[in-house]
Amino acid sequence: MRHVDVLIIGGGPAGISAAIWCKRLGIDCLLLEEQSQLGGQLFNIFNEIIDYPGMRTKNGIEMQREMVKHFVEMDCLYEVNTKVLFIDERSKTVKVKKQAKEQEICYTYLILATGSSQRKLGVPGEQQMIDRGEVYSASADGERLKGKTVAIIGGGDRAFEGAHLLSSQAREVYLIHRSTRFKAREQYVERVVSNPGIKVMTDTEVTAIHGDRHVTSIDLESKNEECYKSKNLLVDAVLIRLGVAPNVELIKGKVATAQNGLIVTDEVHQSSNPFIYAIGDACTTPLFSSISSSAGQGTIVAKHISSLLTET
Amino acid sequence: MRHVDVLIIGGGPAGISAAIWCKRLGIDCLLLEEQSQLGGQLFNIFNEIIDYPGMRTKNGIEMQREMVKHFVEMDCLYEVNTKVLFIDERSKTVKVKKQAKEQEICYTYLILATGSSQRKLGVPGEQQMIDRGEVYSASADGERLKGKTVAIIGGGDRAFEGAHLLSSQAREVYLIHRSTRFKAREQYVERVVSNPGIKVMTDTEVTAIHGDRHVTSIDLESKNEECYKSKNLLVDAVLIRLGVAPNVELIKGKVATAQNGLIVTDEVHQSSNPFIYAIGDACTTPLFSSISSSAGQGTIVAKHISSLLTET
Repeated sequence: MRHVDVLIIGGGPAGISAAIWCKRLGIDCLLLEEQSQLGGQLFNIFNEIIDYPGMRTKNGIEMQREMVKHFVEMDCLYEVNTKVLFIDERSKTVKVKKQAKEQEICYTYLILATGSSQRKLGVPGEQQMIDRGEVYSASADGERLKGKTVAIIGGGDRAFEGAHLLSSQAREVYLIHRSTRFKAREQYVERVVSNPGIKVMTDTEVTAIHGDRHVTSIDLESKNEECYKSKNLLVDAVLIRLGVAPNVELIKGKVATAQNGLIVTDEVHQSSNPFIYAIGDACTTPLFSSISSSAGQGTIVAKHISSLLTET
Repeated sequence: MRHVDVLIIGGGPAGISAAIWCKRLGIDCLLLEEQSQLGGQLFNIFNEIIDYPGMRTKNGIEMQREMVKHFVEMDCLYEVNTKVLFIDERSKTVKVKKQAKEQEICYTYLILATGSSQRKLGVPGEQQMIDRGEVYSASADGERLKGKTVAIIGGGDRAFEGAHLLSSQAREVYLIHRSTRFKAREQYVERVVSNPGIKVMTDTEVTAIHGDRHVTSIDLESKNEECYKSKNLLVDAVLIRLGVAPNVELIKGKVATAQNGLIVTDEVHQSSNPFIYAIGDACTTPLFSSISSSAGQGTIVAKHISSLLTET
């Protein structure tokens, strides 16, 4: 059976950084990526990246290209199109599948860099909107959304913060939530409810997103019959803020996770299993998620594992 | 009196990252740097930087140029040649001196990014050697030191690890320490002592480093009379590994520090004073120190402070 000292699952910025550092420190390391290309969530960034110190890029793809170039130049070992089917933490083995072929790989240390996924509405027109690049950041895209009618979908902090941030620049902001209860912090809710520029619609679900070249309207259905049963609302942009979920299915029940699903780690990113580490969005709340902190975590974990391997 | 929401002391990678992120998040922020240029310890890196994901540079100066370019393009506010004389944590004020002029600046949150300094031997020829760029990394410069005679000065982990790493490539390795007791971990010491390629000299001090265009020899003085009293040793390279000390003089007694002098912080880099944060080498052990983890810490602290400022 193939053995590596360090096996990294996930090829986003956290995994790429860990692999570069393992190589730099002379550690025998292999990175596995399920998709056909390395980069992870970099493919979902359609705006200019201005917050990775020393390097500004037009968008996530450009950052992906630079990171992968670095990774490949360093001769880091990796496999794409390779899905991890199962982690057996007792025998320290993972079962992987590439095309039709299954294989087992044995590790000394495992680094989970599996990232997180945005929760989606699952309605017609949503994926087309994303594929067209109509994905906005409330904090960075104020200018782009100036004078527009914007719908923000969700009931958590990010939805309310987004509504608040955009209310000063957008023409109209709708905050649409399927329930009457909000997960967001009370002071966020108060600030939005008291803001005359934001219309809050509760008990309301988005059932479709319309538009060919760009979003033009959304269909709504409300449980609140006093208000309206179903209607079409003209909007220029939709921000889906249903939250993100860490990709931790593979490790569920095998290491400690917090209530929000994140893998619990200590300051060197070790999980409750001393041979399993987690970095990036699999263990970082969305508030602190960033390319630079993911890269920093990849560095720390590689340096820590290097010190353990040197001791033995 | 001038007031800023966030005052950053120190313009190395950690401080630069924090400032870029503060700007990105719309925080009123000012960075102070004592030297005439931003960059901090980047000026001490003479090797290729291969471990900052996405960006490889020839040396620290090139990395400094890219980081400062980014910082300046983002219109981050800063002052160089500005020495902080005193931090009054009760009134949340710092006293600074620029040229002859003293000034007070009031902060809501203070970020210490003061870095660390390499301890030096303080002997003739040392500074000239450093200025010539004869500064090596035991882990990265194996090739450069192949077949050479190398002296490593120090008694801690990094000295012993360096000796071990280089013994396989250098022609001869001397490990020179002024005492007979070592701070290094026992297994590191054992590995070096049992390595026939490494000559360990204890009770021995380096009194001078010779060489015009490059190091050619060092002068030694030994307390151990059985061995030799003083002698000149021909070497091609000297690695000074006396350890680093965090630059924490300004804050001594005002926030909690660990025995190694590092500022103690929690996972969002808050110190024992809730209005004072520390990032980079002022709070990170040398083992985990890196450009990428410093940049990551700058991100985390700015995001955290942003969430605090938004709440109020």
